[in-house]
Amino acid sequence: MRRLPLAPLAAALLLAAGAASAADTTIPAAAVKTAEQLRDRALQDDTGYRIVASLTTEVGPRIAGGPADQRARDWAVAKFKELGFDKVYTEPVTYPLWQRRGEHGAIVAPFPQPLVLTALGYSAGTPRGGLAAEVVKFDSLDALKAADPARVKGKIVYIGYRMQRKKDGADYGMGSAVRTMGPPIAASKGAAGYLLRSAGTDPDSRTPHTGVTGFRDPAKAIPAAALSNPDADQLERVLAYGKPVTVKLDLDCGIVGQYTGANVIGEVTGRRHPDQVVAIGGHLDSWDPGTGAIDDGAGVAIAMAAAKLIRDLPQRPDRTIRVIAFANEEMGLWGGRAYAEKHAGEVAKFQLGTESDFGAGPVWRMSASVKPEARGAIAQIARVLEPIGVAYDARRPGGGGSDLSQMHAKGMAALTLTQDGTRYFDWHHNANDTLDKIDPKELAQNVAVYAAFSYMAAQADGDFGSAPGAFAGDGAED
Amino acid sequence: MRRLPLAPLAAALLLAAGAASAADTTIPAAAVKTAEQLRDRALQDDTGYRIVASLTTEVGPRIAGGPADQRARDWAVAKFKELGFDKVYTEPVTYPLWQRRGEHGAIVAPFPQPLVLTALGYSAGTPRGGLAAEVVKFDSLDALKAADPARVKGKIVYIGYRMQRKKDGADYGMGSAVRTMGPPIAASKGAAGYLLRSAGTDPDSRTPHTGVTGFRDPAKAIPAAALSNPDADQLERVLAYGKPVTVKLDLDCGIVGQYTGANVIGEVTGRRHPDQVVAIGGHLDSWDPGTGAIDDGAGVAIAMAAAKLIRDLPQRPDRTIRVIAFANEEMGLWGGRAYAEKHAGEVAKFQLGTESDFGAGPVWRMSASVKPEARGAIAQIARVLEPIGVAYDARRPGGGGSDLSQMHAKGMAALTLTQDGTRYFDWHHNANDTLDKIDPKELAQNVAVYAAFSYMAAQADGDFGSAPGAFAGDGAED
Ligand SMILES: [Zn+2]
Ligand SMILES: [Zn+2]
Ligand SMILES: [Zn+2]
Ligand SMILES: [Zn+2]
Repeated sequence: MRRLPLAPLAAALLLAAGAASAADTTIPAAAVKTAEQLRDRALQDDTGYRIVASLTTEVGPRIAGGPADQRARDWAVAKFKELGFDKVYTEPVTYPLWQRRGEHGAIVAPFPQPLVLTALGYSAGTPRGGLAAEVVKFDSLDALKAADPARVKGKIVYIGYRMQRKKDGADYGMGSAVRTMGPPIAASKGAAGYLLRSAGTDPDSRTPHTGVTGFRDPAKAIPAAALSNPDADQLERVLAYGKPVTVKLDLDCGIVGQYTGANVIGEVTGRRHPDQVVAIGGHLDSWDPGTGAIDDGAGVAIAMAAAKLIRDLPQRPDRTIRVIAFANEEMGLWGGRAYAEKHAGEVAKFQLGTESDFGAGPVWRMSASVKPEARGAIAQIARVLEPIGVAYDARRPGGGGSDLSQMHAKGMAALTLTQDGTRYFDWHHNANDTLDKIDPKELAQNVAVYAAFSYMAAQADGDFGSAPGAFAGDGAED
Repeated sequence: MRRLPLAPLAAALLLAAGAASAADTTIPAAAVKTAEQLRDRALQDDTGYRIVASLTTEVGPRIAGGPADQRARDWAVAKFKELGFDKVYTEPVTYPLWQRRGEHGAIVAPFPQPLVLTALGYSAGTPRGGLAAEVVKFDSLDALKAADPARVKGKIVYIGYRMQRKKDGADYGMGSAVRTMGPPIAASKGAAGYLLRSAGTDPDSRTPHTGVTGFRDPAKAIPAAALSNPDADQLERVLAYGKPVTVKLDLDCGIVGQYTGANVIGEVTGRRHPDQVVAIGGHLDSWDPGTGAIDDGAGVAIAMAAAKLIRDLPQRPDRTIRVIAFANEEMGLWGGRAYAEKHAGEVAKFQLGTESDFGAGPVWRMSASVKPEARGAIAQIARVLEPIGVAYDARRPGGGGSDLSQMHAKGMAALTLTQDGTRYFDWHHNANDTLDKIDPKELAQNVAVYAAFSYMAAQADGDFGSAPGAFAGDGAED
């Protein structure tokens, strides 16, 4: 890790370039110094790791509305209090309750054998005893879109898109499209069921990746499931014999009603502007096969630990640090949408925000959607983060992360802090999302980033441009 | 891969050292040359890979006595015939039929959550609805042996031995001891159940490793299961809170009667001594979570492909090449023991033998148990194998591999051809034992080794010392 005494020099250059004016948002030198101390302290601190270990051990898997939902909320309330947050509260979030009760799959003919698969969120269940149908394979989502419904009707559609590991996770774009858009398209053409090669990058693990589908109307949903990568290989090998292949899906799952959970919120109250908030967080729900360590125990832990470090300073920050543990991100940003709906009217009070929801790999890139007059302050933040490996890309927008993208859409100034996601999709949404996948040192780097930026935003002279409708069309992807 | 023209030089040295005499077994120069050609041809040949792809795709998982047992035997008979073997037959093998019908586990208290586990071979089932009991952890098998039964009675014993990757798989010695010996010891002290950290080296995969236990009397068996490594980590974290930990095992499994399967045998008949055999093979059964690619589709494929290359020579070898696809190795060498019992009286007719049952990694070491007068012939074999990476260790015994260890125990001269097992125990006995774990080039190296040695043994002038009771106490481990 490099420690370059860049700040004074760069600030001088900035002034020399004539960029600073009275209207510009700036971060006072004392705040920069404190942020540097927070950053360095965070790197040596294990609070974040202890939080995610506590959540994944004591609560474990916590599918939205499932048996551990209330326990997860109780855990978050207790943890905020234990960490000394000034204010802890919940805000209700209501959503359809989808349940997974059992899932089996098998090749019936020509070579009978089990398949390891997992039902996708909002999948319909099969009739009791299962659903057997011939498989029709498509080479891509586009090929399915273009297909004559006569080829699809009554069949189980299969698409075998194979995701590759990328630092920025870019291949999840297509991977998740095959998972979300494929099922309703297949259903609209009369398919009996839908199977995909998991949207995951572990090439050889029999751990299928679940995730939500894009079914909008439960009445039109069909059974939809993901095969592990080796099971997809096997199905493709069997299909390559050129004989009709019959697969049986036996999925006991579906929507059983409504559920009301909650976003759980903890605050370190601002000393001078308690009503102005820096919003950070993660989502509290997880998928059920794993214990939700990287998705998104890590995000909750990073935000909680960062705020806790700020809370432990000799005095409270000027503005409030608000940590939000969102409800039910996984099945469609329910917590994030409820939050944005409730707080849209206060968007101008949101100084800056972003959520951590891409695992526990180190942050390597920062981008921002802020008003032009706040670019200098963002550059100040960037200079504090640069020594711990974060590069500032001034050309990219910032989107606020998964749930907070909804507040950004309402006009909240937002960062994107991109983590190294090279292995994220090995473990994402499958049974392997467990604590052992988190490197404590990498998690601490994230805490350092969140503590430093949150503090600097809270101490800034001026704002970052949050206003109703600001940043519309900035092209942010999250 | 190096190709050194060592053979003539080394043979000259051997003669110069005065080691050769009329009583010595030697391999004619023409046979050595043909063996070198077989070796080189095998490296370019994909017959072995096509065989294991066929078995794992068309039959898939094939637990002994299970739904695919008969299909596996039919497959082997048909494959031997398709490959042009001269003689194909089966020999019945009868054994207890143990079935796995369902398995679930969970921590009940203090932190309720599911555990990923798999029942072990010959495990008893739990009462319907499951068995919940407090967990008592022991640091080692020795600690369990020494334990006061009062500490164990009514509890679920847990041992967390963590296997490490080794090229020779040495850590499986303790890993398998914890799995086989632990359950009956726990049962004898009144334990209600038994759990272990999987005897496997994949540190972070939620795929528990099954395998047989040492229960001798089904009436005394208790429920016994393996946790995946991350689940063992989780249980240990929960135990570390220092509160009583209750686990529920719900295992629907057990012995339901007897089953008669068969060893399936294919021969390339010897031209001059059809009744003298070189015996090679693998086991046809697999554990059920995977498709038995590395354990032991690979072994069956290596032996079949090696014999097929010899069969395709312009004329048949002097002695018979016998390929044995053994029944039910996994639950206690049933096929190997039945074979040895049936053929003990003919042991002197077994020229040399060894079985492949350690995955598909390259062979890197050869050792032998042969009469002293055949050491020169073994050295000739070694010189043919040396260019493809096989080192001859003249101080180690040869054991014949898993099932054929039983014929070796009756007096059959035997090799051990040690494969690189560094990753073998990542996939061994779990769902990840699938075709993608096999590198076709590495498999071909194995075929080259088996083809070359089998042919040379078949063409030798003289024998390797097989006789009733020979090699007793040679210290061979397999
Ligand atoms: Zn997430
Ligand atoms: Zn997710
Ligand atoms: Zn084996
Ligand atoms: Zn085995």
